[in-house]
Amino acid sequence: MSKLHIYNTLTGKKEEFKPIIENHVGMYVCGPTVYSDVHIGNVRTFLSFDVIYRYLKFLGYSVRYVRNITDVGHLLNDEDSGEDKIGKQAKLMNLEPMEVVQHYTNGFHDVMKAYNITPPSIEPSATGHLIEQIEMVQEIIDNGFAYEAGGSVYFDVEKYHESHHYGKLSGRKIEDLLSNTRELDGQSEKRNPLDFAIWKNADPSHIMRWNSPWGQGFPGWHLECTVMSTKYLGETFDIHGGGMDLKFPHHECEIAQSKGSGKKDPANYWMHTNMLTMNGAKMSKSVGNVVSIEELRTGNHELLEKGFSESVIRFFMLQSHYSSTLDISSSAISASEKGFDRLMKALETMRELKSSDSSSVDIATWKEKCFDAMNDDFNTPILIAHLFDGVKMINGIAAGNESISSADLELLTQTMNGFVYEVLGLVSTQKEATQDSVTEELLQLLIELRKQAKDNRNFALADEIRDKLMSLSIELKDSREGTTWERN
Amino acid sequence: MSKLHIYNTLTGKKEEFKPIIENHVGMYVCGPTVYSDVHIGNVRTFLSFDVIYRYLKFLGYSVRYVRNITDVGHLLNDEDSGEDKIGKQAKLMNLEPMEVVQHYTNGFHDVMKAYNITPPSIEPSATGHLIEQIEMVQEIIDNGFAYEAGGSVYFDVEKYHESHHYGKLSGRKIEDLLSNTRELDGQSEKRNPLDFAIWKNADPSHIMRWNSPWGQGFPGWHLECTVMSTKYLGETFDIHGGGMDLKFPHHECEIAQSKGSGKKDPANYWMHTNMLTMNGAKMSKSVGNVVSIEELRTGNHELLEKGFSESVIRFFMLQSHYSSTLDISSSAISASEKGFDRLMKALETMRELKSSDSSSVDIATWKEKCFDAMNDDFNTPILIAHLFDGVKMINGIAAGNESISSADLELLTQTMNGFVYEVLGLVSTQKEATQDSVTEELLQLLIELRKQAKDNRNFALADEIRDKLMSLSIELKDSREGTTWERN
Repeated sequence: MSKLHIYNTLTGKKEEFKPIIENHVGMYVCGPTVYSDVHIGNVRTFLSFDVIYRYLKFLGYSVRYVRNITDVGHLLNDEDSGEDKIGKQAKLMNLEPMEVVQHYTNGFHDVMKAYNITPPSIEPSATGHLIEQIEMVQEIIDNGFAYEAGGSVYFDVEKYHESHHYGKLSGRKIEDLLSNTRELDGQSEKRNPLDFAIWKNADPSHIMRWNSPWGQGFPGWHLECTVMSTKYLGETFDIHGGGMDLKFPHHECEIAQSKGSGKKDPANYWMHTNMLTMNGAKMSKSVGNVVSIEELRTGNHELLEKGFSESVIRFFMLQSHYSSTLDISSSAISASEKGFDRLMKALETMRELKSSDSSSVDIATWKEKCFDAMNDDFNTPILIAHLFDGVKMINGIAAGNESISSADLELLTQTMNGFVYEVLGLVSTQKEATQDSVTEELLQLLIELRKQAKDNRNFALADEIRDKLMSLSIELKDSREGTTWERN
Repeated sequence: MSKLHIYNTLTGKKEEFKPIIENHVGMYVCGPTVYSDVHIGNVRTFLSFDVIYRYLKFLGYSVRYVRNITDVGHLLNDEDSGEDKIGKQAKLMNLEPMEVVQHYTNGFHDVMKAYNITPPSIEPSATGHLIEQIEMVQEIIDNGFAYEAGGSVYFDVEKYHESHHYGKLSGRKIEDLLSNTRELDGQSEKRNPLDFAIWKNADPSHIMRWNSPWGQGFPGWHLECTVMSTKYLGETFDIHGGGMDLKFPHHECEIAQSKGSGKKDPANYWMHTNMLTMNGAKMSKSVGNVVSIEELRTGNHELLEKGFSESVIRFFMLQSHYSSTLDISSSAISASEKGFDRLMKALETMRELKSSDSSSVDIATWKEKCFDAMNDDFNTPILIAHLFDGVKMINGIAAGNESISSADLELLTQTMNGFVYEVLGLVSTQKEATQDSVTEELLQLLIELRKQAKDNRNFALADEIRDKLMSLSIELKDSREGTTWERN
């Protein structure tokens, strides 16, 4: 079998994955900032890493997956006045900031659950690690890579770059960065416009603040991820992930903070998920193509023909590779929905397959191809293409055009179920429907009544039953083995 | 209308509730320690305060409800060696303590959701407030009510009692407490056996520890609640709640910490929920009457005849007053289940009621009684008794024995729905079932087919439909208005 390879953003190469500790993987992914509803771009990122997490476990690794909650200290960028986004929102709503945090954290968890995204092993929050952040600020100062100014502490990027490489992840050149920045009003405290805050002074009107050796303040946003990833996974861990927009400056700063505080390079493999577009353009309010998670579900948006279940959107997203741009459109999701239903129907069919003495299909080779796809940097679209080859085999066997041995049938079943449910984390909407066993029983009763009507040559009644069910989008299918039903 | 009165454990009296800030209520409830599955006794406590929270909001108060997560520092009692419970469990499972915390926090949230217990406004954790805890330890030391010994800091109970009243909440007398304690090995660092740790030294093998002015350690359990309640609700807030087992020493120590750190008395009203028993005895492994939440749901326990939905158990629990002992038994919950179904059925009937020119029922008086019950220290069993008077009225009106004006019907509907859904937070299991509109449509089709069969004098077919539905526990009821169905 092929070995797992990961495209490492740090080196720009696809590399064989070699964990630091055999059979164990430490993975850190930057989580949401909980000052507003989670958007669909975040969902794609967390979904991508959910499948990566699931596949690593599927391969037998013991994975410690840490995904943080940013509940304080997220500065929009170094250009803004340093006001904390959550504090801002709280004042607006006349709420305690932690009440805002709680509200959006609950909402975030609800969305994750709806999309069947597994909770991480640890979900630490920035406010839960203030002592550690203050200690790391002190370490960076002690190493000469940060300075205090006006109650804030700034990371000295140029000083750091003298002995280290600032830009190693993003490929940005410090000379270019310097020539593209200019000194702005109110930032005169900084020695250099590239410097970033690792501790920010808070004036008394700022509601989220803590005592520190530099006065009352709050930690800079970049710092929390360095602190929490190294606390739970060690100085160097296996995988660090996040959205591509975080590569610079956030992740670049994380590396600088780790090295600047005297630690090693934080992660061996850096992974970045790509962005979403809607109808071919970046989502933006001015374009009018911003679609919320709620709107995707209900279809209540002018760009959507109808609503889609989270299961279908999950499948749709996995039909693109995590590192590709993904364009959302009503027609594209509709197309995925048909494929999704076909896949799920085949899994139902698979359960009823009868085995023969020998196989006309090559399950072992097919199974290897499935693993090869995922081992090639978690290539879910290729995996899904192979799963549809599986669908063809299943339907071929069911139609009697192909045969399968009992050992192969077991392998087929294990592989299909493993990849569909465990790795891709898909949930059958058909299953959701038939989970209500009463519905199933009622339909069986109606099918029986229709059969009796036909046997009694009461075709009007038989047709009436079929037509009424059709009006409920339930289609009856007659065959020699009897009548089955399915939802359209 | 009567005014809200609360039984205040602090004074031992039922007192009129007067909030500190008009129209606002601050409420703090001690939450779970997340090192094991939540048990049914915890559910009762959180359910009781959920109804209190809901009723306060129903009365129009703006409520900030804080319920913490104890994720570190829960010492079993002062007699144990001081090893942190979560750390102990983590070593056993070979897990990072925060991984244990995450696992059980997720499980706790799932249970709260299943029981329809509203999330609190803020759910802060002990590890999220270490700076504040360390600062409070220092304040208590500075005020002379605590001393450092061997890297730990102890609250000096006797010293405190010289100028304050230790025992004011629990009614314990310090002289009795002193005569009942004895010096134990390994506790020689304490000046007095009554003293309790507010900061605990951690040896290097202890995995959850933080730097502090007294060396590496972790906060004492009592401290976090004082810190988090006052941080989010102010020095003095309205209501402090918890299970009765927390009254001493936990809540007594909270008061001492607040006053000892130079603050005011923390809460104006202290409320304590009573304990659960199972088949008349305290749940204990040796008696074999410990029933888990999972077992209550599935019925998979020798003391249970069958499983019960969370909605039914919620209703069952609310049929006792929060301050009374509640005995769980299979027969008692079964009895509640019948009452619950009757109540829920009446709410369905209510929707179909026709109004008359005048009322033969006195809705205004009845409504006042409902409020009176809840205003009398949240007396849910009395409220439920009144709601059953409402059921009688509804059924009387439906049967044509009573009449109701349209204004009264609106008042009846508002009051019933308000108390059942908003205040008691009950969820109709009937509703859960019919939420699947397909089931409803299929049943309507079957009812129509049966009618046609009867019209065609095909009684065998009509009976077959009825009997098959009966086997699915669906009963058809014929009346002049037509045929309806219900689940048995």
